[in-house]
Amino acid sequence: MDEAALRHARSVFPWLVGASQVVGLAAVVLTGVWMGHFRGGFAWDGSALEFNLHPLCMVLGLVFLQGDAILVYRVFRNETKRNVKMLHGIIHLLALIISIIGFVAVFDFHRAAKIPDMYSLHSWCGMATMVLFCVQWVMGLLFFLFPVASSWLRASYLPIHGFCGVMLLVMAIGSSLLGITEKLLFSIMSTYSLFTPEGVLANVLGVLLLCFGVLLGYLLTREEYRRPPNPEEESLSVHFKTLTEGGSPTTP
Amino acid sequence: MDEAALRHARSVFPWLVGASQVVGLAAVVLTGVWMGHFRGGFAWDGSALEFNLHPLCMVLGLVFLQGDAILVYRVFRNETKRNVKMLHGIIHLLALIISIIGFVAVFDFHRAAKIPDMYSLHSWCGMATMVLFCVQWVMGLLFFLFPVASSWLRASYLPIHGFCGVMLLVMAIGSSLLGITEKLLFSIMSTYSLFTPEGVLANVLGVLLLCFGVLLGYLLTREEYRRPPNPEEESLSVHFKTLTEGGSPTTP
Repeated sequence: MDEAALRHARSVFPWLVGASQVVGLAAVVLTGVWMGHFRGGFAWDGSALEFNLHPLCMVLGLVFLQGDAILVYRVFRNETKRNVKMLHGIIHLLALIISIIGFVAVFDFHRAAKIPDMYSLHSWCGMATMVLFCVQWVMGLLFFLFPVASSWLRASYLPIHGFCGVMLLVMAIGSSLLGITEKLLFSIMSTYSLFTPEGVLANVLGVLLLCFGVLLGYLLTREEYRRPPNPEEESLSVHFKTLTEGGSPTTP
Repeated sequence: MDEAALRHARSVFPWLVGASQVVGLAAVVLTGVWMGHFRGGFAWDGSALEFNLHPLCMVLGLVFLQGDAILVYRVFRNETKRNVKMLHGIIHLLALIISIIGFVAVFDFHRAAKIPDMYSLHSWCGMATMVLFCVQWVMGLLFFLFPVASSWLRASYLPIHGFCGVMLLVMAIGSSLLGITEKLLFSIMSTYSLFTPEGVLANVLGVLLLCFGVLLGYLLTREEYRRPPNPEEESLSVHFKTLTEGGSPTTP
């Protein structure tokens, strides 16, 4: 990439990050408005109000916070790796806790209302995302925060960890869109086609989640936004082997 | 990446490509079985049988063929670029024609049955995917098959074209999953939770589409499966500027 193109790409970076945060937060707020205003609010009593916590927790934890936990490697690409890694782990821990609350809320509501579990495509995709997210979190912890694996194994796992992170974010967004469609057809099937405010609001929420995914996807996959290799830091890290052999290290 | 890891990655490549083709074709077949067996077959008469062409054409054109059109750059990465580019364009043309048939089928059915258009999240996402797919196809044609842009402009556009291609494939898969959920809730809402054969088959179709996306995503984003730069060919192509400045060319 030539210098002018690199400068241009770097100059739009803060705008793209800003846009992703506005879009992501708008999605969280819209989920809150949908469940709080149109669906009657929140409670923890096994009723439909407990179900309402499910979309809010999933959009906040599994989409917004998971996305931001990955994005810290791009936003703080000039900070020390150790600190960025800690921040990545902490935001992911928060995402995990909030997602588990949302996960429990829906099963609790189903149990109280005697609704069968795990029959819909949304539940299959959502469960796969949730299980893989937990596996990814534990693997990340073992490999990179409390390294129990050899540096060769860690270096080999790093690109897989990065790919799975982006894949899980896409799966979380896809599962959310399926959940929106399912909730609308269960609740307002007869009026959905009349462009009622609730239907339009939920559709806009879906589009915002899609835009969040596109923005994050772009920021996370463009080469010029990657963390620049720092030889002093890298020589002590998982990239040791790659660097000494003259390869190009891949930083998540 | 060290030699052993590169050899390992290269050795699994044909297996991953094979798996993607098996999974993708199984998804097309399952869509045919769903619409042909459970939903009464196909026709072009404005009835529900015309609607049945919509999922089949979309899964075949916008998912399977679009995915394979991108994958040719990885599978034939040692063939001449001109031939691979032609193949990429031809498969995309086929994908475009089949998608347009599927697109017309649903609007034709809605008109005959007096069902409103464009109110659901599936229709919003599907329309966005279809419009952007057409824009991407025309841009690709102008920039790379009948180059009307300068080589600088083409080199700048190339990574955007690649990113948008993968994004459109993900959007096509996401829209398909939304369509599956919508169709199931419109057709078998009362029996879906009883794990009836139609519901399970459609869920399995959704999981296959997801697996196709994950496999393609992995094959298209791993560095070691990229087309190796060929200086003789590249010097005449869009990468001229990048190569002469010592940068690393990005090949779609």
